[in-house]
Amino acid sequence: MPSTLLSRRDLRFLLHEWLDVARLTERSRYAEHSRETFDAVLDLAERVATERFAPHNRAADLTEPTFDGQRVRLIPQVKAALDVFAETGLLAASLDSSVGGMQLPHAVSAACFAWFQAANVATSAYPFLTLGNANLLLAHGSAEQVDTWVRPMVRGRFFGTMCLSEPQAGSSLADITTRAEPQDDGTYRLHGTKMWISGGDHELAENIVHLVLARIPGGPAGVKGISLFIVPKVLLADDGALGARNDVVLVGLNHKLGYRGTTNTLLNFGEGVHRPGGRPGAVGYLVGEPHQGLAQMFHMMNEARIGVGAGATALGYTAYLKALAYARQRPQGRPVADKDPTVPQVPIVAHADVKRMLLAQKSYVEGALALVLYCGRLLDEQRTAPAEADRDRARLLLDVLTPITKSWPSQWCLAANDLAIQVHGGYGYTRDYDVEQHWRDNRLNPIHEGTHGIQALDLLGRKVTMRDGAGLALLVDTIRATVGRAWKAEGEAAELAARLGGALDRVSLVTRRLWERGDPELALANASVYLEAVGHVVIAWMWLEQLLAVEAATGPTDSGDDVAFYAGKRQAARYFFRYELPRTGPQFDLLESLDRTTLEMREDWF
Amino acid sequence: MPSTLLSRRDLRFLLHEWLDVARLTERSRYAEHSRETFDAVLDLAERVATERFAPHNRAADLTEPTFDGQRVRLIPQVKAALDVFAETGLLAASLDSSVGGMQLPHAVSAACFAWFQAANVATSAYPFLTLGNANLLLAHGSAEQVDTWVRPMVRGRFFGTMCLSEPQAGSSLADITTRAEPQDDGTYRLHGTKMWISGGDHELAENIVHLVLARIPGGPAGVKGISLFIVPKVLLADDGALGARNDVVLVGLNHKLGYRGTTNTLLNFGEGVHRPGGRPGAVGYLVGEPHQGLAQMFHMMNEARIGVGAGATALGYTAYLKALAYARQRPQGRPVADKDPTVPQVPIVAHADVKRMLLAQKSYVEGALALVLYCGRLLDEQRTAPAEADRDRARLLLDVLTPITKSWPSQWCLAANDLAIQVHGGYGYTRDYDVEQHWRDNRLNPIHEGTHGIQALDLLGRKVTMRDGAGLALLVDTIRATVGRAWKAEGEAAELAARLGGALDRVSLVTRRLWERGDPELALANASVYLEAVGHVVIAWMWLEQLLAVEAATGPTDSGDDVAFYAGKRQAARYFFRYELPRTGPQFDLLESLDRTTLEMREDWF
Repeated sequence: MPSTLLSRRDLRFLLHEWLDVARLTERSRYAEHSRETFDAVLDLAERVATERFAPHNRAADLTEPTFDGQRVRLIPQVKAALDVFAETGLLAASLDSSVGGMQLPHAVSAACFAWFQAANVATSAYPFLTLGNANLLLAHGSAEQVDTWVRPMVRGRFFGTMCLSEPQAGSSLADITTRAEPQDDGTYRLHGTKMWISGGDHELAENIVHLVLARIPGGPAGVKGISLFIVPKVLLADDGALGARNDVVLVGLNHKLGYRGTTNTLLNFGEGVHRPGGRPGAVGYLVGEPHQGLAQMFHMMNEARIGVGAGATALGYTAYLKALAYARQRPQGRPVADKDPTVPQVPIVAHADVKRMLLAQKSYVEGALALVLYCGRLLDEQRTAPAEADRDRARLLLDVLTPITKSWPSQWCLAANDLAIQVHGGYGYTRDYDVEQHWRDNRLNPIHEGTHGIQALDLLGRKVTMRDGAGLALLVDTIRATVGRAWKAEGEAAELAARLGGALDRVSLVTRRLWERGDPELALANASVYLEAVGHVVIAWMWLEQLLAVEAATGPTDSGDDVAFYAGKRQAARYFFRYELPRTGPQFDLLESLDRTTLEMREDWF
Repeated sequence: MPSTLLSRRDLRFLLHEWLDVARLTERSRYAEHSRETFDAVLDLAERVATERFAPHNRAADLTEPTFDGQRVRLIPQVKAALDVFAETGLLAASLDSSVGGMQLPHAVSAACFAWFQAANVATSAYPFLTLGNANLLLAHGSAEQVDTWVRPMVRGRFFGTMCLSEPQAGSSLADITTRAEPQDDGTYRLHGTKMWISGGDHELAENIVHLVLARIPGGPAGVKGISLFIVPKVLLADDGALGARNDVVLVGLNHKLGYRGTTNTLLNFGEGVHRPGGRPGAVGYLVGEPHQGLAQMFHMMNEARIGVGAGATALGYTAYLKALAYARQRPQGRPVADKDPTVPQVPIVAHADVKRMLLAQKSYVEGALALVLYCGRLLDEQRTAPAEADRDRARLLLDVLTPITKSWPSQWCLAANDLAIQVHGGYGYTRDYDVEQHWRDNRLNPIHEGTHGIQALDLLGRKVTMRDGAGLALLVDTIRATVGRAWKAEGEAAELAARLGGALDRVSLVTRRLWERGDPELALANASVYLEAVGHVVIAWMWLEQLLAVEAATGPTDSGDDVAFYAGKRQAARYFFRYELPRTGPQFDLLESLDRTTLEMREDWF
């Protein structure tokens, strides 16, 4: 029985046959590794995800966390799974060995993490939030902060959160009001309320390390006056032992549509409930310099955004595999050409419309996974490419791709979940099958870590204009290089290359047209449409890349399984180019027309 | 405070300014009515829906029905609301006065029912299923059956169900196996299992009248051997008094993603649990002639399918109004041109991207409501048009529009719900707001009463080919007439008419091309794409109709409210033509290419 979480065959194809991650072992950072160690870690991830995370996915949804005013309670399977996860050391898969990490390439660790996200996205959120926190402190914290906070996180003793939003400031970080008063001893005292804090309270770890955005009084207004602080749930004694409770108080849990196993909290800082030493406020420690909080947080946010895309992809992927398994065993109806009611019914996978729904899912989830792993590969390039120019190039390309890698899977792997329900028919609407939960869980992804609309403004308002358009030019050149290779390959690849080349021309033209008037309001009016269109072009590129990898890998000695696997990749590529890429035509038309429908709509006309 | 269920202003526009339902009172069937009585019934529906149905919508979701092996328990508010509903007589709004009905036009009763569907789709399902059942018996039952079963249903004493599906036969009715053995006394004894039966058990009424599809042994295989039976939960004595339990046994309740307040059941017929009189089997009464069950059921199914579209529309509509109300009061961010963090935040309705999401919702839900009421108007025409040719024309047009009216709102008002969540941001993902429930409830609509795929086959495989294509020709001619009127109107209407005319040409050409090879497998391979494209053309037509009605209604003495209302209609029409109708271009291209991607996909390639 193949796994219904992810496909190892597809991961082998993407990581080895396409991205050739084994070549990374030629670089000093990964010299201790080999293809065998990569595969062994993937084995480990698959096993732990399957045995420890998947089994309580539904239970954690049905019995969501509760708060009785004193303690947060979760079903015990969550902590049991996370303890095993900590033992594996996978949390630190990509971290430096100097802090206890495995120093794996990001492309490989992203594939490992996808197993956990597919198995149980809610339980996985705790370690992945912790990892984001640790990475931020590794980048911007002092050596002492790394020792004090990161090392216990890497070992799974402490968990971490990110505290950005406030009730009146979700998308608009300029409006946060939490304040941090400097103290004589160099620490700060924080006062304020943070909303939507995932993993904000629980008893899964000894301590929770909150990373909090707040204002130091007297600083600039808006985002330029935001600083970053470490605010632990439990203060530490000088020897690192757990001490008194800090003044961080759980006000309540949010009750959500999905992702129910992850506590999501409203937290008060400095309300005086756990007042340490008599002075009011939650004790916080400044990270880096004052007023650099937003830039520091963006470091984490880019990583978190790619992580959101990865989670959306994993949810889409597992639901697709479950829909496929269902379609293969569920008899219903007969072929169009044979209506004889006395012959047995056929499995629904035989129906063209079911194949369409499965092909759509396959093209979405495998396309999205390719993009997520490609971004992982770019992170590795950014970190270890021998030439500085290559590292810069990877960083810039990753900057442009981040909003797309966040948003595209959030939209289209959610659409895949919708199709997975549809393939299941009435059964898919019941809680006896997994797909409805995946759909509910996945609905968070277009919202958190920056909504679609925010990603669209990031892409069109910042990423494609920055450095005089260098980011967009690099993306276009990079895709153009694939188009060029596909041209030379002739056959179907050349045909698809022509279509992708045409769409790429439109990306460049439309972007120029949107900005040529120098009117940001007009340029950005349909930023979401732009994000969607460019996203489809990028995924078409991922499919052309995969098609080229298939053509390079296919040989006369292929096993029957390989022949079928590659045929499936070809058909999914074809599907994406015939059914999906053409959607961008009307989107580009609309953008080119500088449509003002939304701008001209008046509030009182609704 | 305007209602957040539906818009009375929009209903006034659609019913009076556009469909001119008051003119129906010139016909004898509606002669007792007037515009005032129509409006009074709408007032009543709004009030009862608002006061009795809406308040327990969330409670019925959180506390779903339970079955302890003996009794089904629901929260008491459901029965309380339904008792009030029965008292109003609204169930029989469109029925003949001879059976206790109000004899209202269908266009008006559909508008009344939409209030209840918007307020609480799960509680509304009980009477609406009952109404479908009653209508079927009125059309096909004997006078005695009408007296015995329909009259108590009209008064709310009995409720009704439709028992079609079985565990092994959902979409494929040819494969149902429930059998009905004829008895000497003219009754039948039924044996079999029915799945997905909504309202299949409860204690909301004195009795439940199941309409059951079953086979009389010796009849033809497939759909030609299906007959229709009345199978009550409780048998009646000769004087109509409630007697012994019939052998209809609730096996269990399905636990669903949404629509949780409606019991959905697995029922056993004839398992011997309530054996009456010693002879095994559930007592059933044949409706009409043997082997006519499918044709009879289709009568009900067409009505039920339009009802599904109406329910999807109502859910989309209320979520839109709630998103709009939220967007008007939630401050967040600043205009693109003004980033000064010291000025106050603006309500999010001011942002172009939020206006885009609201306009999309408005264009979907108001477009869908127009189609639903238009179908109601066609039902009235079919029933009361003086000329037989007009009645036939209405029947045929309704036949073609039925799969679209079922599917389009199910798809796009669900998309509207998704956007309503997105407008709410993180709050929309919590159960503190209604929109997540509407989204979950609405997800049923693309599944029940025939999935999207089934509707697509119905449209492309049956409705557009029947009577040598007369149905499609009529639809095209009817839309063309609107295009012609819009041409004459000049201005924006003429511009939109040109676009709709172009899309209409493609409908005709593509339909011919799909069928010209006489290969049903190829023609139907992308039937779902066809359904979606034609659906968008039909809704564009509804918007052009509305635009013409706006132009006819607008006058120099309009109040400020009217000016704003009409401007909103214009802008939504514009939105639909600029953002939505162009989606059909690539769909028609794909269909025209007779694409074989799905046909050629092999099961082992997935």
